[in-house]
Amino acid sequence: MATQTQTALQVNAIMIGVKDLARAKKFYGEGLGCKTEQDYPAFVKFTLGEGSSSLALYEREAAAKDAGVSSEGSGFRGVSFHFIVRSKDVVDEVIARAERAGGAIVRKPTSTQWGYFGYFSDPDGYLWKVASASY
Amino acid sequence: MATQTQTALQVNAIMIGVKDLARAKKFYGEGLGCKTEQDYPAFVKFTLGEGSSSLALYEREAAAKDAGVSSEGSGFRGVSFHFIVRSKDVVDEVIARAERAGGAIVRKPTSTQWGYFGYFSDPDGYLWKVASASY
Repeated sequence: MATQTQTALQVNAIMIGVKDLARAKKFYGEGLGCKTEQDYPAFVKFTLGEGSSSLALYEREAAAKDAGVSSEGSGFRGVSFHFIVRSKDVVDEVIARAERAGGAIVRKPTSTQWGYFGYFSDPDGYLWKVASASY
Repeated sequence: MATQTQTALQVNAIMIGVKDLARAKKFYGEGLGCKTEQDYPAFVKFTLGEGSSSLALYEREAAAKDAGVSSEGSGFRGVSFHFIVRSKDVVDEVIARAERAGGAIVRKPTSTQWGYFGYFSDPDGYLWKVASASY
């Protein structure tokens, strides 16, 4: 049945609710070099390449409203976005770039038994892990 | 420079922290038909196809610890995962399937000016929007 393929769950886009759309757009666009696919006053979408879901920005209140839920919430979101790169140097480079763009280093890159990785957060506190399999 | 391509941000995996790994694994695997790529006692990863990031499950405490942050947090997470399908029928089908698998219907599918869509949440409250461009 053709329908079965279609119902296989995919994340076509990750939507994050942000406080300041212009700030978030600048962070991901100019700051981290993401390619804008859609750019509206209330909604921005970046294409992140073939092996990745797109990233969509929406105001936090609007994001909650779209789902019909309260926008109240705080603390750890339980979610992180993982970017796998080819070397330690690139891990350092991406995290430094995120910091220059207005993000924060949450976990300084270090070597662990699973490879070399660190975390940064975007201006709204969304967590990104940047990791390389090399130690 | 080869490095520039490499630093273009991608979401290779979305990691969500869950309360009960077995329950979440069953929901996404058996329930929604996601294909297991890695299956360890403390970590499960599903491949969701070429146009999508992978989905990784980790215990919530472990997910917070990996980033070096507190696991405290509640309410709206600000994040939703969007699954775009080809018709209204498929929207209904996916949301019904999620409910049968132990998820909850958060927003019943309806026609809007942007198409037909609804939201379900997984057993840990992560929000999924299922949408079709057809009205």
